[in-house]
Amino acid sequence: MPKVLVLHGPNLNMLGKREPDVYGHETLDQVNNRLIKMGTEMGLTVETYQSNHEGHLIDRIHSAEGTVDAILINPGALTHYSYALRDALASIAVPAIEVHISNIHQRESFRERSVTAPVTHGQIVGFGTFGYELALTAVVKTLHVFD
Amino acid sequence: MPKVLVLHGPNLNMLGKREPDVYGHETLDQVNNRLIKMGTEMGLTVETYQSNHEGHLIDRIHSAEGTVDAILINPGALTHYSYALRDALASIAVPAIEVHISNIHQRESFRERSVTAPVTHGQIVGFGTFGYELALTAVVKTLHVFD
Amino acid sequence: MPKVLVLHGPNLNMLGKREPDVYGHETLDQVNNRLIKMGTEMGLTVETYQSNHEGHLIDRIHSAEGTVDAILINPGALTHYSYALRDALASIAVPAIEVHISNIHQRESFRERSVTAPVTHGQIVGFGTFGYELALTAVVKTLHVFD
Amino acid sequence: MPKVLVLHGPNLNMLGKREPDVYGHETLDQVNNRLIKMGTEMGLTVETYQSNHEGHLIDRIHSAEGTVDAILINPGALTHYSYALRDALASIAVPAIEVHISNIHQRESFRERSVTAPVTHGQIVGFGTFGYELALTAVVKTLHVFD
Amino acid sequence: MPKVLVLHGPNLNMLGKREPDVYGHETLDQVNNRLIKMGTEMGLTVETYQSNHEGHLIDRIHSAEGTVDAILINPGALTHYSYALRDALASIAVPAIEVHISNIHQRESFRERSVTAPVTHGQIVGFGTFGYELALTAVVKTLHVFD
Amino acid sequence: MPKVLVLHGPNLNMLGKREPDVYGHETLDQVNNRLIKMGTEMGLTVETYQSNHEGHLIDRIHSAEGTVDAILINPGALTHYSYALRDALASIAVPAIEVHISNIHQRESFRERSVTAPVTHGQIVGFGTFGYELALTAVVKTLHVFD
Amino acid sequence: MPKVLVLHGPNLNMLGKREPDVYGHETLDQVNNRLIKMGTEMGLTVETYQSNHEGHLIDRIHSAEGTVDAILINPGALTHYSYALRDALASIAVPAIEVHISNIHQRESFRERSVTAPVTHGQIVGFGTFGYELALTAVVKTLHVFD
Amino acid sequence: MPKVLVLHGPNLNMLGKREPDVYGHETLDQVNNRLIKMGTEMGLTVETYQSNHEGHLIDRIHSAEGTVDAILINPGALTHYSYALRDALASIAVPAIEVHISNIHQRESFRERSVTAPVTHGQIVGFGTFGYELALTAVVKTLHVFD
Amino acid sequence: MPKVLVLHGPNLNMLGKREPDVYGHETLDQVNNRLIKMGTEMGLTVETYQSNHEGHLIDRIHSAEGTVDAILINPGALTHYSYALRDALASIAVPAIEVHISNIHQRESFRERSVTAPVTHGQIVGFGTFGYELALTAVVKTLHVFD
Amino acid sequence: MPKVLVLHGPNLNMLGKREPDVYGHETLDQVNNRLIKMGTEMGLTVETYQSNHEGHLIDRIHSAEGTVDAILINPGALTHYSYALRDALASIAVPAIEVHISNIHQRESFRERSVTAPVTHGQIVGFGTFGYELALTAVVKTLHVFD
Amino acid sequence: MPKVLVLHGPNLNMLGKREPDVYGHETLDQVNNRLIKMGTEMGLTVETYQSNHEGHLIDRIHSAEGTVDAILINPGALTHYSYALRDALASIAVPAIEVHISNIHQRESFRERSVTAPVTHGQIVGFGTFGYELALTAVVKTLHVFD
Amino acid sequence: MPKVLVLHGPNLNMLGKREPDVYGHETLDQVNNRLIKMGTEMGLTVETYQSNHEGHLIDRIHSAEGTVDAILINPGALTHYSYALRDALASIAVPAIEVHISNIHQRESFRERSVTAPVTHGQIVGFGTFGYELALTAVVKTLHVFD
Repeated sequence: MPKVLVLHGPNLNMLGKREPDVYGHETLDQVNNRLIKMGTEMGLTVETYQSNHEGHLIDRIHSAEGTVDAILINPGALTHYSYALRDALASIAVPAIEVHISNIHQRESFRERSVTAPVTHGQIVGFGTFGYELALTAVVKTLHVFD
Repeated sequence: MPKVLVLHGPNLNMLGKREPDVYGHETLDQVNNRLIKMGTEMGLTVETYQSNHEGHLIDRIHSAEGTVDAILINPGALTHYSYALRDALASIAVPAIEVHISNIHQRESFRERSVTAPVTHGQIVGFGTFGYELALTAVVKTLHVFD
Repeated sequence: MPKVLVLHGPNLNMLGKREPDVYGHETLDQVNNRLIKMGTEMGLTVETYQSNHEGHLIDRIHSAEGTVDAILINPGALTHYSYALRDALASIAVPAIEVHISNIHQRESFRERSVTAPVTHGQIVGFGTFGYELALTAVVKTLHVFD
Repeated sequence: MPKVLVLHGPNLNMLGKREPDVYGHETLDQVNNRLIKMGTEMGLTVETYQSNHEGHLIDRIHSAEGTVDAILINPGALTHYSYALRDALASIAVPAIEVHISNIHQRESFRERSVTAPVTHGQIVGFGTFGYELALTAVVKTLHVFD
Repeated sequence: MPKVLVLHGPNLNMLGKREPDVYGHETLDQVNNRLIKMGTEMGLTVETYQSNHEGHLIDRIHSAEGTVDAILINPGALTHYSYALRDALASIAVPAIEVHISNIHQRESFRERSVTAPVTHGQIVGFGTFGYELALTAVVKTLHVFD
Repeated sequence: MPKVLVLHGPNLNMLGKREPDVYGHETLDQVNNRLIKMGTEMGLTVETYQSNHEGHLIDRIHSAEGTVDAILINPGALTHYSYALRDALASIAVPAIEVHISNIHQRESFRERSVTAPVTHGQIVGFGTFGYELALTAVVKTLHVFD
Repeated sequence: MPKVLVLHGPNLNMLGKREPDVYGHETLDQVNNRLIKMGTEMGLTVETYQSNHEGHLIDRIHSAEGTVDAILINPGALTHYSYALRDALASIAVPAIEVHISNIHQRESFRERSVTAPVTHGQIVGFGTFGYELALTAVVKTLHVFD
Repeated sequence: MPKVLVLHGPNLNMLGKREPDVYGHETLDQVNNRLIKMGTEMGLTVETYQSNHEGHLIDRIHSAEGTVDAILINPGALTHYSYALRDALASIAVPAIEVHISNIHQRESFRERSVTAPVTHGQIVGFGTFGYELALTAVVKTLHVFD
Repeated sequence: MPKVLVLHGPNLNMLGKREPDVYGHETLDQVNNRLIKMGTEMGLTVETYQSNHEGHLIDRIHSAEGTVDAILINPGALTHYSYALRDALASIAVPAIEVHISNIHQRESFRERSVTAPVTHGQIVGFGTFGYELALTAVVKTLHVFD
Repeated sequence: MPKVLVLHGPNLNMLGKREPDVYGHETLDQVNNRLIKMGTEMGLTVETYQSNHEGHLIDRIHSAEGTVDAILINPGALTHYSYALRDALASIAVPAIEVHISNIHQRESFRERSVTAPVTHGQIVGFGTFGYELALTAVVKTLHVFD
Repeated sequence: MPKVLVLHGPNLNMLGKREPDVYGHETLDQVNNRLIKMGTEMGLTVETYQSNHEGHLIDRIHSAEGTVDAILINPGALTHYSYALRDALASIAVPAIEVHISNIHQRESFRERSVTAPVTHGQIVGFGTFGYELALTAVVKTLHVFD
Repeated sequence: MPKVLVLHGPNLNMLGKREPDVYGHETLDQVNNRLIKMGTEMGLTVETYQSNHEGHLIDRIHSAEGTVDAILINPGALTHYSYALRDALASIAVPAIEVHISNIHQRESFRERSVTAPVTHGQIVGFGTFGYELALTAVVKTLHVFD
């Protein structure tokens, strides 16, 4: 069964616990469970992973090579400066989709720039946690990783 | 029946005719027909409009107020400088989703910045013409414009 | 009878319909009628024109040469990037006054810069729609176009 | 009787004495007398003050609180760097209008930026000394400070 | 017979009517007629088109595909910001040459940058209206569009 | 008993061991013991934590929610680029005070900017390790976290 | 008895009178009296001085040489541009501590940069008027000016 | 017989020997001979000079005063930084035309800016070595140096 | 007898008292006396004035009009931001020479830029207090103010 | 026996596995073994360490103090933003040499700047994995750490 | 007899021949002769040298070491970019004074910055060719090279 | 026998004569002789050339084509601005290695950027004159120019 890895970066473990006006009321567990269930319905194994450590995220990306068919990644604030994360995504052959829960273009100016976007397949921004579902749909329909 | 307006900016009429490596082989008519059909299946009226004229796009956005429930817009190159288009989107109560066919973060540096993004609900970037379908799904699922 | 052309740029047709906290409740028709009436009292013909099209505004500016004595212009968002509008104003001998309804220095940073200001006679900013009346007064008192 | 304070910043005491091509031939006294007379006709007390000292201007602004209904201010070159003057204007409840005699957008590039504009009600720029009269009219008609 | 399309952008209809020190005394009609005549002598059909509308210029460029062998374009002030025009030129297989009547490097600093130059074959700048003739010569001699 | 968490970022474990001209001769243990003792005298539990890992610092900040009343943080060099640390501090309701041992404004220019300062309550900079004591005093006197 | 000079820059005389959400409700006199009293308890003479004039502040700084043991200074908006104030602080041997009442990193971007910070001993930012007390404590404990 | 000096800057002696995809296959001697022959046909003496030395080019420009009627110059990479070359061109009364073989707007960003362009009569860019012929034509037709 | 006004800006009263490695050991009085004596020998009246107040310097410059033949000015740190001082110098017909004691190009980067230099006749920088003597010589020999 | 620590930053564990056109075909283990063997021949103990975690690299650098004679470090993408890594290198007395496998000056512009270079002894860039051997030679010949 | 070398950079050989409004009517020979004569009167040997070649100027500077007591240099346009010239001046122990004939702060913006100024003793700017005489006076009076 | 050309740019002839703290005590002749001897031992002909003239260096680079197998170049200060030198290196097929004696990242900020680095094979920075030896080793081991 094809496999999709969903990666959550720093502070996403706090989802639903704080700043609900920005990030909504749903917790990360609820989001992950929803994606796993949706994956099952689509015939996919969805695996999720969250870390506040840039290094752990890079390790996890490396291990995806050869074992995972696509990556959904919300790099959190690492989006804006982690060239190491960017290089990790570029170092493997697995396609990645970047997801942001909030509309980063309506917030502080430093959030406008993504250093990871150039090495991902596409970005889905501003649709709340539903953005992950859109991304999962996109994986199935456009990446052709399961053909 | 709820109504979604799909707006295509300058040069999108050339879709499928030139630079297929960047934009794919599908023509704009094919994309539009697909969206209209998809809309019907979802119980939506999808109306499409393309113009190479900033002014016509603004006029069309204004007339959407009170007649349309959501807008999908690919502003083409106007994305990068048309503050007038931005103000048009901000001047109506209809929510808009910004779509880009190619991954604009992998191209010329001027394409990285969107002056319209801050006044849209979210962005879907890099999924080819399938991005419009994702956006249509997002309209139905997250904007709650039909509730 | 001397003639003053009042030009309104993109989105000003929405005046009074949306964002009243920024632009007030008065519609563009009401503003125009007030200016026409005020013009009559001052012995001036006031003609008004609004367009969301940069090109139509330029066309109208060109045709003002030899037929109009002064221009009041609120270029809307074109203020911030339309060098073509700037060149149009520079290409005729009719003096122009730039008007902005809101205090553009209290809003987004891109609104601080006007590319048209250097080719106009002066600017009136932040007085709501009353700014047009001030500009009309200024035309009569300082441009000496009717001497 | 309502009171309007007209503040002139550094070098405006030289008005009419030097650089008449930029600032005109009228002296500051003549401008002030004209404004006082115009105020009387409008039922206003107009008080004028000029200083080349940032500190004296700030002192005068502070003392306007509770004694003056509106301020007209031409900060001269302080416009471009005096954040202290800006804070003084922001520290009182009296509304201020910024006036510039010349069209600052046609001169050296450092004159384009105003650090005081964001804390004033509006700006009138480029109409020579008649700009003060326009500002006085604006005070009566739009600030509603005398209602 | 091979065909060359000569495109004139915003404000070029004012040629010869205003600012003769910058742009010379010749009108656009005179320039166009000269080019048409010169084309005939060279065995070329020269067609000319001027518009103050970015959108019309883009439409005209699109329709050149398959019907025109080369384009001479003076984008006027659109040169400096119209990424939409740039994309239009890039969207067709017809080679274009950019012409500027004045030496844009001796004027305002914003005129130094051309956003269209990277997608044209070459630029001819500063030779007055004779620049179009040089460009026509260049079309015949270097583009090999008629081979 | 109220609790204050003192967080030390990368390289602060080297305190007192190297570059005493910049950071002084006291070791981190000595500083921590002094703060714990001072806390006891003030009726506070002071807990200290140092890590060279951005991720561990973020984890520790998250776990402070609901268990700690205030945070003193010296983010070390992370001050200048870790938006993830910033988001962590913003994600909890516990107030934080930023402390820097040296006067960062007298050193390399990159040290001038703090990306964390906007989400902290205040900053104490340049007083050597005594700065932590000042911060502890500030916690008791101004944050009212123990009221 | 050792002496500490507390200098308040432009607009600080308005403290407690306006913008209490930014600066609190306490007046400058109340702050000063509190510091004088606190000084007495610590065995220090505290002298206070406020001016809206950059020049008077510089004069006062110069006269501190040889008569004062330490300076606490809140330069107000001069913080952001007064290189003359900076040079004054650098021209004497008396150490200075910079205090800001509000967290300047949470406000307008121009407030982020301090031109005086590099010539002061340290900065205390964001603790309201209690920041002066912290600074006074710092003078006694870390500057060793009284040893 | 009127005389035109053709100046080639650094590395142009390598023309035709390397990077033919950028600069073509023709050698500098071939280009020069073609220009000399073309000159003869037009009744002009064409003299050519190449140097890799900024100083020799400047010397040659100085000696053109009074002996040469026009200069064609391709300054090579000196275009982008040699203010000395610029001053040399400005120091004589002989008009100069700047020629670039490749379209410098399609290459590295440093090649976009020309420090010499503001002191030349016009620029011809991107037409390969045929650009020199266009420039020679321009000299005869527009500079009126032989009238 | 012709008259030269020597103006010293903020902190120059501290000359010789502090930072002798930067500014030398001579006091301002000694410098002034030397200049007065040198003036007498040259048949000039030399008048000196120092102030730490931008406003007083501006007042003094204004009063120089018609009473003084040339100004030597060392604006101190005002050099780098006082556009008001610049306007004062520009507002009178008396030529001014800018003097800096230290080589401002070897110090902090903010000292490199002079906002006053463009409105002075020339600058003498880095020769210690002897620079004033050079400037006095220059007044006599090159300004021709006494012819 | 003297000891050299070879540190490899994020993503270098992927060496030889991906992007061989940029980084070559050799794996990190092969590189390390080669260096260890080369060290033995030179009478050095070579120890190697790779981590994708900034924090682990910092920890390892700290523990090098007193146990290692020199460090060779390829910080990977951390080169471009990790001021924490820079501070770690600066916090110990062990000299470090920075190595980059590819020529970072021929790649994305963000790779041009190294924040760690100023605190290292020197840099070796662009020689593939042979760069480590050059660095080892440099340690022996120029650092004199074994004298 | 002490020796002073006067160095003139590119284009200064054109002095007096062109652009007299900027540089005056005097030729370089006249200036040099005047300086030689003045030197004789002061007991100095003055040697002069002009070159349009950066390399020759550097060679001449190197040979000044041990044979010349001071250098006066007007680097012409090399002032603004020749770091090689800067390094040459820094590489010898002979003090240099930088002279500019025109007030470079009143001309194009690129002339404002001097890359050589930081390694010279001082600068004399804007006094025409008399500036060299001032510099010669300065050499005798302040450099103490002949003591 | 394979041949390596060692090129030294401006001011390197002063090596060992001045600023030994930056560049060491060894003269250029000593360095060259050491390299020639080392080359002989490696079976290479090493030829050295130094010039203070950008033009001579370019000439020498051109003549290396077909006669030299590799180039070691220390462009001196030309590193930071000579695009002509860069183009020369790019115009030949001979690989080049850039060497800097000092760690340019620890010096003035203008020395951080190399305009030549992108067209060289690699860089060796900061190892004193031993850097040339490392570069010679690199030529033999990695460029494969002698295979």
